[in-house]
Amino acid sequence: MKKKPAPLPEETALILALSRRFGPPPPEVVLGIGDDCAAIALDGGRCLLWTVDTLVEGVHFNLSYTPMEKLGWKALAVNLSDIAAMGGEARYALLSLAWPKARDRAQALKLAEGMAQAAREYVVAVIGGDTVAAPEVAVTVTVTGVVAASQMLRRAGARAGDRIYVTGPLGESAAGLEVLLRGLALEPNLQAALTQAHLQPRPQLRAGRVLAQKGLATSAIDLSDGVATDLAHVCRESGVGARIPAAHVPVSPRVKAAAPALRQDPLDLALKGGEDYQLLFTCPPDKAGALRAAFARAGLPEPLALGEIVPGEGVVLITARGEEDISGQGFDHFRVDLGEEEN
Amino acid sequence: MKKKPAPLPEETALILALSRRFGPPPPEVVLGIGDDCAAIALDGGRCLLWTVDTLVEGVHFNLSYTPMEKLGWKALAVNLSDIAAMGGEARYALLSLAWPKARDRAQALKLAEGMAQAAREYVVAVIGGDTVAAPEVAVTVTVTGVVAASQMLRRAGARAGDRIYVTGPLGESAAGLEVLLRGLALEPNLQAALTQAHLQPRPQLRAGRVLAQKGLATSAIDLSDGVATDLAHVCRESGVGARIPAAHVPVSPRVKAAAPALRQDPLDLALKGGEDYQLLFTCPPDKAGALRAAFARAGLPEPLALGEIVPGEGVVLITARGEEDISGQGFDHFRVDLGEEEN
Repeated sequence: MKKKPAPLPEETALILALSRRFGPPPPEVVLGIGDDCAAIALDGGRCLLWTVDTLVEGVHFNLSYTPMEKLGWKALAVNLSDIAAMGGEARYALLSLAWPKARDRAQALKLAEGMAQAAREYVVAVIGGDTVAAPEVAVTVTVTGVVAASQMLRRAGARAGDRIYVTGPLGESAAGLEVLLRGLALEPNLQAALTQAHLQPRPQLRAGRVLAQKGLATSAIDLSDGVATDLAHVCRESGVGARIPAAHVPVSPRVKAAAPALRQDPLDLALKGGEDYQLLFTCPPDKAGALRAAFARAGLPEPLALGEIVPGEGVVLITARGEEDISGQGFDHFRVDLGEEEN
Repeated sequence: MKKKPAPLPEETALILALSRRFGPPPPEVVLGIGDDCAAIALDGGRCLLWTVDTLVEGVHFNLSYTPMEKLGWKALAVNLSDIAAMGGEARYALLSLAWPKARDRAQALKLAEGMAQAAREYVVAVIGGDTVAAPEVAVTVTVTGVVAASQMLRRAGARAGDRIYVTGPLGESAAGLEVLLRGLALEPNLQAALTQAHLQPRPQLRAGRVLAQKGLATSAIDLSDGVATDLAHVCRESGVGARIPAAHVPVSPRVKAAAPALRQDPLDLALKGGEDYQLLFTCPPDKAGALRAAFARAGLPEPLALGEIVPGEGVVLITARGEEDISGQGFDHFRVDLGEEEN
């Protein structure tokens, strides 16, 4: 019982409508609106990658459960994840920090310390920015990077027959968010691992570089909104569909362990929860061996297969109950409000 | 009765404290935190200029008096003004738009139309970005540009004996804001000119290019927070002081005309009001003739002299009542709250 494709997520529809107002980019702009980064051709066959992302208090995080250092880390990490999704090397960052006048400035310095920690870890320099007063904390980071034009990964490029992979198990960030929002107490190691996955995501820059340098991926995206939405972006940009057997979804064992306490379907957390910041990519079946070998040589965990690219459109989940198009059922800022319990 | 220098504006102090957390930039970063843009050395003797600025509802603007198109224009224009202050050519922009879920999305498209209008006017391409839900509208724009490294204008570089100039008359934006905030009705042409100056500032990119190409400025900054604060930045970065005879301050005739209705000192609006987005720059006296000639040839209004750079420190205003150090008395996000009347 295959349903017709879901409508565009509201955020995607708004971005597309906005982009039409700005008109087509000049020819040296290799990628404009609609990928993880904008890409501008430089001399020497390289591209400048450029991205911007904002985290808003009460929407993306609540300070009741988010330490400032983690917020600073994450605000940079989510941008680095966009560079990773293009196969690039991250270089520089600017911070625009919106800060309530009444809030202790020492906390802003904690935020900067967390961001500086991520910057050191991923060898990025934070070289400028801006501070403004605002009713709530909002952290905007913009990051530039570089990639060889011939190696750049894109959302467009997946072909029927390609296998779909992710760089790590899914659902931990969404499960961690549930733990934080509901103040649950799980087994301490499990609790720590899940909340850490949500608060301090690790951008997959090395995996992106391996995919780019070895030409192993026909498309790639980072998992910010969940497989249901992010794989749908890949399918739409590539003009293909995807089929995911539910039994193949690499749900994190930690998420399965926590599911009874969370009273949530682990598969839902894995496919629709978002913020895992793993890379999702497609790879032709004849390169599966080279893919495994390249990741092993780089000391990276083995990529986890998720399903297959097919002709058509939509992201179809195959369960014992039948088939369902889950396109766009991931996190949508304009549909879900993470902060409602607090407001 | 010269007072001792004023303390750093709170915003400046916060930016400096944040920058210490991020440590020194790598060697190819020509300018890091503390100028209008970050500057990164490129091949061929050029620098990449990069800036980010956020406008927040209730802090930088109120939607009761700000048309969405003007907000879009201004959010790009204030970033272009930072590129102008470095003598650069603006190239590309990204938009990160924070938008309340309950607010009509059609208004976001109006905002994009105003931004696209500014982008066409100043030949900049808006090539990407991000949208997020938020409690109030916030518009973050990041802009890149280029400048020859040998031509780049900086805040540091003013020398004792240099004359201080601005590219246009002062105080119109601050007067326009007063008109808007208090709902005043002035003579219609005057009303329109002042509110337009506030809502649709014109970044001085051409003036910046002339100064850079002809090597006419020893230092430059754009007037976002007002002469009292922005000239103090130039003095601090250059290790000099400034003396401004009150009678020389190029207060806009429109501001003088509106002053009785505004019940504000025109000189205060001109020096402390902020958001004029004119360039302030310093030029050695022996280049005064070349400066006038270059601006005339470029079809630009004659630069207006404001005072003189002197040894020492601080921005000293000279009036009939004596001398006063006005350093840092301009607009400070963390001291003033523009939106209080509305909240």
